[in-house]
Amino acid sequence: MRHFYNLMDLPTDDIRKFLERAEAYRREPYGDILARKQFVLLFLNPSLRTRASFEVAIRELGGGVSTLDAESLWKLETEVGVVMDRDKAEHANEAVGVLSRYFDGIGIRAFARGVDRDEDFQDRMVTAFMGRATVPVFNMESALYHPCQSLGDLLTIQDLLGGFRGHRIAITWAYHPRALPMAVPNSILLAATRMGLDVTLAHPVEFALSDAILEMARANVQASGGSLRIEHDRLAATEGAEIVYAKAWGGLKRYDDAEAEARDRERYRIWMVDRKAMERTKRAYFMHCLPVRRNVVVSDEVIDSAASVIFKQAENRLHAQKAILEWLCTG
Amino acid sequence: MRHFYNLMDLPTDDIRKFLERAEAYRREPYGDILARKQFVLLFLNPSLRTRASFEVAIRELGGGVSTLDAESLWKLETEVGVVMDRDKAEHANEAVGVLSRYFDGIGIRAFARGVDRDEDFQDRMVTAFMGRATVPVFNMESALYHPCQSLGDLLTIQDLLGGFRGHRIAITWAYHPRALPMAVPNSILLAATRMGLDVTLAHPVEFALSDAILEMARANVQASGGSLRIEHDRLAATEGAEIVYAKAWGGLKRYDDAEAEARDRERYRIWMVDRKAMERTKRAYFMHCLPVRRNVVVSDEVIDSAASVIFKQAENRLHAQKAILEWLCTG
Amino acid sequence: MRHFYNLMDLPTDDIRKFLERAEAYRREPYGDILARKQFVLLFLNPSLRTRASFEVAIRELGGGVSTLDAESLWKLETEVGVVMDRDKAEHANEAVGVLSRYFDGIGIRAFARGVDRDEDFQDRMVTAFMGRATVPVFNMESALYHPCQSLGDLLTIQDLLGGFRGHRIAITWAYHPRALPMAVPNSILLAATRMGLDVTLAHPVEFALSDAILEMARANVQASGGSLRIEHDRLAATEGAEIVYAKAWGGLKRYDDAEAEARDRERYRIWMVDRKAMERTKRAYFMHCLPVRRNVVVSDEVIDSAASVIFKQAENRLHAQKAILEWLCTG
Repeated sequence: MRHFYNLMDLPTDDIRKFLERAEAYRREPYGDILARKQFVLLFLNPSLRTRASFEVAIRELGGGVSTLDAESLWKLETEVGVVMDRDKAEHANEAVGVLSRYFDGIGIRAFARGVDRDEDFQDRMVTAFMGRATVPVFNMESALYHPCQSLGDLLTIQDLLGGFRGHRIAITWAYHPRALPMAVPNSILLAATRMGLDVTLAHPVEFALSDAILEMARANVQASGGSLRIEHDRLAATEGAEIVYAKAWGGLKRYDDAEAEARDRERYRIWMVDRKAMERTKRAYFMHCLPVRRNVVVSDEVIDSAASVIFKQAENRLHAQKAILEWLCTG
Repeated sequence: MRHFYNLMDLPTDDIRKFLERAEAYRREPYGDILARKQFVLLFLNPSLRTRASFEVAIRELGGGVSTLDAESLWKLETEVGVVMDRDKAEHANEAVGVLSRYFDGIGIRAFARGVDRDEDFQDRMVTAFMGRATVPVFNMESALYHPCQSLGDLLTIQDLLGGFRGHRIAITWAYHPRALPMAVPNSILLAATRMGLDVTLAHPVEFALSDAILEMARANVQASGGSLRIEHDRLAATEGAEIVYAKAWGGLKRYDDAEAEARDRERYRIWMVDRKAMERTKRAYFMHCLPVRRNVVVSDEVIDSAASVIFKQAENRLHAQKAILEWLCTG
Repeated sequence: MRHFYNLMDLPTDDIRKFLERAEAYRREPYGDILARKQFVLLFLNPSLRTRASFEVAIRELGGGVSTLDAESLWKLETEVGVVMDRDKAEHANEAVGVLSRYFDGIGIRAFARGVDRDEDFQDRMVTAFMGRATVPVFNMESALYHPCQSLGDLLTIQDLLGGFRGHRIAITWAYHPRALPMAVPNSILLAATRMGLDVTLAHPVEFALSDAILEMARANVQASGGSLRIEHDRLAATEGAEIVYAKAWGGLKRYDDAEAEARDRERYRIWMVDRKAMERTKRAYFMHCLPVRRNVVVSDEVIDSAASVIFKQAENRLHAQKAILEWLCTG
């Protein structure tokens, strides 16, 4: 039995195999490899793409799918040894133990709460699920990682550029009215460096990703032969890029001081992907995982241009997730 | 590719064809015309009948169905060119673009919000969806229209009266503690006049439907040979009717002044369909789209009488919607 | 047509037949007895196990399933003759009448609200559904009973002890920060006495079950040859038990005075199933219907021990419910 938690847990060859299988599912969307299998998707946070694409993926491969969201569930505890006399009526241990008896696979989404840095950095909810499940668990976005998104992103990049080595991607921070989680930037940074892309990671100084992630990214570069450059000028960042991948995220340094973090962010409202940023590129494609705030993260002009591949990117989630389900259930 | 937005967009012969197909589905509920097709139902407002009947319709015809509601979704923006730095995290353009990649058809419910008259009269959410979708969109009740309801209603009237021409229907306003949307009265008025029924539309003077709808209804009368009379006396309204169709709705004139609108409504608490109203009829059937407030919109005595055909009416939604799905997917 | 409301409505032989059929479904989980049948599950309260296990049960037997929860529904009225001008937009009569037209079976969960004793003791919501439905209704936990849980529990006890007669179960109250409903203790007490177990029912004096339930339990003992002892000392309660079945519930005497009820409860925080309680038993198994609050209702030590059979118990819900669906649809 195996789980799908972080794309980085897998050898590069397995990732390439995923991309091949995803392409096969794009050609033939239906199958029966999940016949007589039942899946549950647990959304502790909102979802449009992930929910819709997993439900369709499972049904198109012959499986059954139940979706549960926070409103329909008891609040889940993840701490060990705690006296549960507060608002949480069920421990994650019991939830996952029970679901393991009903289902052949469990998908879970549990964002960073942005309150307790340790809780988020330990990815407690998804870790608790993987630790206790007796069936495969797949990560539909945890506090730290969004591996389904990154696999779809890699497929998109391969579709557009024909491969990874020697190609340039700019992963750029963007302003957002809220301090968003880091799962998406973490995952695309790791995936891009792993596949050997030349990566520019751009953000205001206050918005660095965690040291642990940056170390993994550098190790990827060592192994893959790509490169990683960190840039704090939003326009210099996109210079010569073939892909501009935009994403907003919150500041790590200010986890315990939301007001200070918000003040930091406000100063960088200019960090939006606009025509000026795109003009510096090598006729780059624009990517974003969605949902995206128009004229905040990206201008209407850019997102509505021919360079924008957001729908291709979203569609590739579907094909990529079928490859993941296949790997989980036939491994 | 076509959308199903307003029954009035279709020639009368197509509506008759829908009724025939609905009757066929009543005789044989199961089929496989939706095999290898996936649908999404998007409910931005609550639903019992529409949700249940569409889910069943799709499954009985061999399709797969995902249902998303407001709680599980990001708040959607519909305005063009706006800086999205407020509460709405995703633009309808992106939502529908993505869903078009996963699904073979998209159903959407988006009631009038009753706040901004232009927004409601332009039916912005459903219009945004139809404008950007690359797969068929069907209207599960928009600010302006509820065409699935009306098609089910026509089937019910045909079941009960054997046809439309020469038959009399009273569509009557009813009191309700809230200012409800006008999609249902708009749609049944247009459907009834289109099929050539003799229609009495009854409401207190303050609760007229919009001029645009009334113009369309009068054009229908011209073309179909039926008639339309507007009546402000609730008892005179049902005189000689064979169908009494009750529905509460809010006042158009007071869109910007909810308190004044509520005061207007309060004065007409007497507008409930009771035995007295039914006694003036020609042994009429009682219809209502549901949900209905007992002893507010209709008395227990009437809704529980043999004249009440509310369950037949609800059931006919199921058969009618199969005809709509067939038309959308095999057209 | 029949409903599944309370296990006690059925002869003991039928219950034994259910257990046999549940075992058969454990051996062969898939089937087609629900092919061309559609079911709706109505959750007016949260659910993890019941929702997941019914959805899986229905799909594995070839049926289609729609799940509706309180957020997606109109608020339902159950009172007769009321003027519905408050917060409830639909009467249960109409909801069930409509659902009967779309579905071949209706599951409903409607907990005790704990506000109006009469409402809860009359089990108004589920009773309203059964009274008006024209298709089978099954009780997924009402104010008074949770028969699906009890049937799964009986299967678990039979699995563990090989039968019922001559075996000892302690059903013990536990502290909980909220005054929980009594459906589970009512149902397991009735089921255990019906099958002839020797039952100790343990609770602080203030937390007696209702007289009506106790009378039924005593009649069961008369008929089955088991026994029933009521105990107010939590440690004496588990003496010699082979099963310890823990459950928290609120005080009946204080329905109109939530503060006084909470004060009563606070005094019994010591009522947790811990090692001390388990040491008095005859190497008993620990059972709980879940969700359970760790270190409030049961200690980590007990729930994580080999004696804990909570996951087997949860799994047996799935098998038991298939037997129930079979009985409802082929009866």
